[in-house]
Amino acid sequence: RTMNYGKEKVAVYRTYANPLEGVRTIPESSFDGRDNILFGLEVRVQFEGEEFLPSFSEADNSKVVATDSMKNFVLHQAGEYEGATAEGFLHFVGKEFLDTYSHVEAVKMSATEYPFDERPVPGEDGFEPSDVVFRVSDDESAFGEIYLERNDDLIEFKEQTSGVTGIKLIKVKDNSFTGYVQDEYTTLPEREDRALYISLDIFWTYDEPENALGEEPQQYVPAEQVRDIAQVVFHEVDANSIQDLIYQIGLRVLERYPELETVSFEANNRTWIEVRDDLEGDARVFREPPRPTGYQQFSMDRSDLEEQ
Amino acid sequence: RTMNYGKEKVAVYRTYANPLEGVRTIPESSFDGRDNILFGLEVRVQFEGEEFLPSFSEADNSKVVATDSMKNFVLHQAGEYEGATAEGFLHFVGKEFLDTYSHVEAVKMSATEYPFDERPVPGEDGFEPSDVVFRVSDDESAFGEIYLERNDDLIEFKEQTSGVTGIKLIKVKDNSFTGYVQDEYTTLPEREDRALYISLDIFWTYDEPENALGEEPQQYVPAEQVRDIAQVVFHEVDANSIQDLIYQIGLRVLERYPELETVSFEANNRTWIEVRDDLEGDARVFREPPRPTGYQQFSMDRSDLEEQ
Amino acid sequence: RTMNYGKEKVAVYRTYANPLEGVRTIPESSFDGRDNILFGLEVRVQFEGEEFLPSFSEADNSKVVATDSMKNFVLHQAGEYEGATAEGFLHFVGKEFLDTYSHVEAVKMSATEYPFDERPVPGEDGFEPSDVVFRVSDDESAFGEIYLERNDDLIEFKEQTSGVTGIKLIKVKDNSFTGYVQDEYTTLPEREDRALYISLDIFWTYDEPENALGEEPQQYVPAEQVRDIAQVVFHEVDANSIQDLIYQIGLRVLERYPELETVSFEANNRTWIEVRDDLEGDARVFREPPRPTGYQQFSMDRSDLEEQ
Amino acid sequence: RTMNYGKEKVAVYRTYANPLEGVRTIPESSFDGRDNILFGLEVRVQFEGEEFLPSFSEADNSKVVATDSMKNFVLHQAGEYEGATAEGFLHFVGKEFLDTYSHVEAVKMSATEYPFDERPVPGEDGFEPSDVVFRVSDDESAFGEIYLERNDDLIEFKEQTSGVTGIKLIKVKDNSFTGYVQDEYTTLPEREDRALYISLDIFWTYDEPENALGEEPQQYVPAEQVRDIAQVVFHEVDANSIQDLIYQIGLRVLERYPELETVSFEANNRTWIEVRDDLEGDARVFREPPRPTGYQQFSMDRSDLEEQ
Repeated sequence: RTMNYGKEKVAVYRTYANPLEGVRTIPESSFDGRDNILFGLEVRVQFEGEEFLPSFSEADNSKVVATDSMKNFVLHQAGEYEGATAEGFLHFVGKEFLDTYSHVEAVKMSATEYPFDERPVPGEDGFEPSDVVFRVSDDESAFGEIYLERNDDLIEFKEQTSGVTGIKLIKVKDNSFTGYVQDEYTTLPEREDRALYISLDIFWTYDEPENALGEEPQQYVPAEQVRDIAQVVFHEVDANSIQDLIYQIGLRVLERYPELETVSFEANNRTWIEVRDDLEGDARVFREPPRPTGYQQFSMDRSDLEEQ
Repeated sequence: RTMNYGKEKVAVYRTYANPLEGVRTIPESSFDGRDNILFGLEVRVQFEGEEFLPSFSEADNSKVVATDSMKNFVLHQAGEYEGATAEGFLHFVGKEFLDTYSHVEAVKMSATEYPFDERPVPGEDGFEPSDVVFRVSDDESAFGEIYLERNDDLIEFKEQTSGVTGIKLIKVKDNSFTGYVQDEYTTLPEREDRALYISLDIFWTYDEPENALGEEPQQYVPAEQVRDIAQVVFHEVDANSIQDLIYQIGLRVLERYPELETVSFEANNRTWIEVRDDLEGDARVFREPPRPTGYQQFSMDRSDLEEQ
Repeated sequence: RTMNYGKEKVAVYRTYANPLEGVRTIPESSFDGRDNILFGLEVRVQFEGEEFLPSFSEADNSKVVATDSMKNFVLHQAGEYEGATAEGFLHFVGKEFLDTYSHVEAVKMSATEYPFDERPVPGEDGFEPSDVVFRVSDDESAFGEIYLERNDDLIEFKEQTSGVTGIKLIKVKDNSFTGYVQDEYTTLPEREDRALYISLDIFWTYDEPENALGEEPQQYVPAEQVRDIAQVVFHEVDANSIQDLIYQIGLRVLERYPELETVSFEANNRTWIEVRDDLEGDARVFREPPRPTGYQQFSMDRSDLEEQ
Repeated sequence: RTMNYGKEKVAVYRTYANPLEGVRTIPESSFDGRDNILFGLEVRVQFEGEEFLPSFSEADNSKVVATDSMKNFVLHQAGEYEGATAEGFLHFVGKEFLDTYSHVEAVKMSATEYPFDERPVPGEDGFEPSDVVFRVSDDESAFGEIYLERNDDLIEFKEQTSGVTGIKLIKVKDNSFTGYVQDEYTTLPEREDRALYISLDIFWTYDEPENALGEEPQQYVPAEQVRDIAQVVFHEVDANSIQDLIYQIGLRVLERYPELETVSFEANNRTWIEVRDDLEGDARVFREPPRPTGYQQFSMDRSDLEEQ
């Protein structure tokens, strides 16, 4: 049966965490590390184990770790973690949970990273990033999830997902959508050249889960770089659909990072509706579409890359 | 691999749909049917099938049914459906999709029902529900999901989930939370008598998926009744935790509806924080908790009922 | 200059507050009081006064009451208030603020009331409202605002607004919209019979502000009754526009409550778009409109009533 | 009486609008113009005039311009506007409205600009901004509002407000909050050194409203520069309160732009709660505060600058 409980939306912030240094660089991105002066996560904790059944069926709380205590636990560990990544922090806290509470059989920890943007201030040689002031952003953010299971005396790192969510990109021209099924339910006109506005979540798994922790930075895949791949591929490709676009992004991600086993996508189409195309040159006027949005869910692995 | 696409957030409204009549009644609820003068759903459509791969890997749209056409399809079928339930509508439309597009292998349809409340107006014998004016409510609503798969020439009804989501209930006294693990991370005080505020989603599956369609109303489980069971059990029980409470609700649901195979819960704890208990009698003052919320996920089946 | 500060979104809940009893009844509503077993408000506090200027211009906090202390103050007073209305509570707390902090020149207090719905449970004579379990609703709620100003040694009750916000009503037929300006920008078709979906905030002021406090219940206008007037008038009238509808509602409100000086409206049009009218009888299929919404802002006073 | 109506949330997007060039530069910002390859606004239109009264009181729609037509009007004019600023567009459309509909007495137009961020892609000399792909951002955005009134045959530009809204900044150290009122309601501890997280809306008015239109770019105040002033002042100043901080920001804004008559602020305090200060150096762990937030509303003019 499904049986778990925990705490979600635990916002934890740490100043002057250890920097992420020594990551590989790729042609699509200038990202080569981050200072972690400000490191923030919204964490979700999930406990599993047969010993929790009496808390449901017999109102017996004797094995229940209060979810308020879970929150305190996560906040405390944010001061103890010495690594530099969301995934590393989740793994660290998850292991501490299993070490502390021997009746817990498995722990799932996930988190969305709060993005804090560097802001330019005048320095000696022109503008440089402030070392104390940051923008709290609502744009795309890193994601991590890890699953740890107790097997006898061992704690196994069973599963892992990393990602970047909330990417929203618009390409103002050089996209088409043609050649689809035409029947009595079709009212959408074919377009040889349209603006295309997508929102995109990208997830990836490693062959070796340990590579997700960032302890060997050369094997680590930073969310910032994957986001940059998405925008560069979008810039380069004249896509005939979102399906086409995400396939090209997926190939590029798999090509850049041999450590990855899979890459997957959740995409949404938010493309605006053209209302004027009688203007000079490429200029157009658009309005917002009604709310229903098309979506795609798609996963790829190395065999997709090999077929190219 | 994961590979699907579709349309979500398709709001569809139908006036003067067929009424739901002849449902069984239960002691916990006065619900015995609804007029369906106004029937509204937010629908999600998902198409699956190997023939969609070239739309990703080769930018070949020839098998792609545009998601805009899916929306048109759903809206059209809302005029054709002659039943009275969300699940019935989803099944009807899903079957039409598979009949119309022979290259689609499976369809998943889900929906949240928009709640429209009857409003009292003066009538000949006192107040009676208006037959034309309704409140558009943001409170709890019915949920349905069905999964249809093509096997050779047959369309199989493989899976089904029904539910009611967004229940939010507060019980102002007669709840406790005691006896849980006390350690260095524990700061939450034990309470013999607290207010308890929960949000709750309840889901159920039938032994025979066809019973979810409402064609035989005596075998159908209306979301309104399950909601009413939740509030009545909460009223009756002095719960020692949310775990305890949902187990009692689950037992009652399984007892009332022998057609059900499972019932499951997603619960959230939103309990306020007491700031004054020095007032007369049971009066208290409370404030809102910070955002992190405890949750429970739990499923039950008939074996839980038999153990009682 | 504009200069004020304060605390907003202070959620305060009180159990077993004093009941509201003895209100007048009106033909449009069955509301005749409430138990106030659960009384909850989201409060906003605003302090004004010249003595706050140095906190801005000289970083001098010596006159600053921390907004955290304001929150504590409001929570404490929720246990002291012996009345039964939102407006009464705001007035009580505002006066306490001015009594406590002599350098504050004026206080504006406003609040939205949290709606808690009674829920039926089986009783000795059929279903009756639970006295301990309530639904936490997201539907329409009462509003209040008061403004108190210190003049020498006196505290004057200068302004007051009461209201009900977040009303959302749909009438499925018997509404028209015709006869409006037709020109090159017009694409909306005229409709002799349409569904009309409005959201509506209604506000009122009394001739004598003190009547808003509820101390003399026969002079008090409960938000629940005004909401009921709105739905009854909507039921009765075949409106040719939202403008027409709110004027009729306003007349009825002024007619029922001679204590009121003005009634005003903020209305939004959320009317669905018809996609099928080829069904039997009055049945229709609708879809959601795109996001842009028409609105109306309109106030009325007793002279509007007299002109009828 | 209050009497107006209109359309809000009209999203309008224009590609390849005219660039904003030739603006003055300031020490706090590298902003010196924008390409306007993508120019997007969420517009609100408000019509005023005595001739609308019969639409309320007599259900007479003959003078009613349907709000749907207003939307069409705005979308059409987005193709006609030849300027480069939000305020300029609003003024242009407002004037067209008054020219087209002679019974309208006054028009208020306001808008929030959609922020689209440039994204770096590999170019010949390293990374350069893509000329076709942009990020759709949810961070701070420009605001504009103009009010035009018909007086006999003249259209007067009566009022104007410009702004930047949704700034969210955190400074991780070097902020204090001390010396405030201590009494029985005070539980907040004084802090010599705290993290400070603010959200901020800044508004300004010009001596000459025409300067807000951007037709003379040297007299125009770009929202991007004001945002940059806010973050630079926050970086430079050790603030003893939000009041202190916004006063310093206001002085700098007035100093940089002699065209401005006033600058005003709406600030919110979102400061996190410290949970660990026992770590090495300046490192801290924080959690989120509960929801109630302190706010400040404050306006300044040139006399504040002169007093310095």
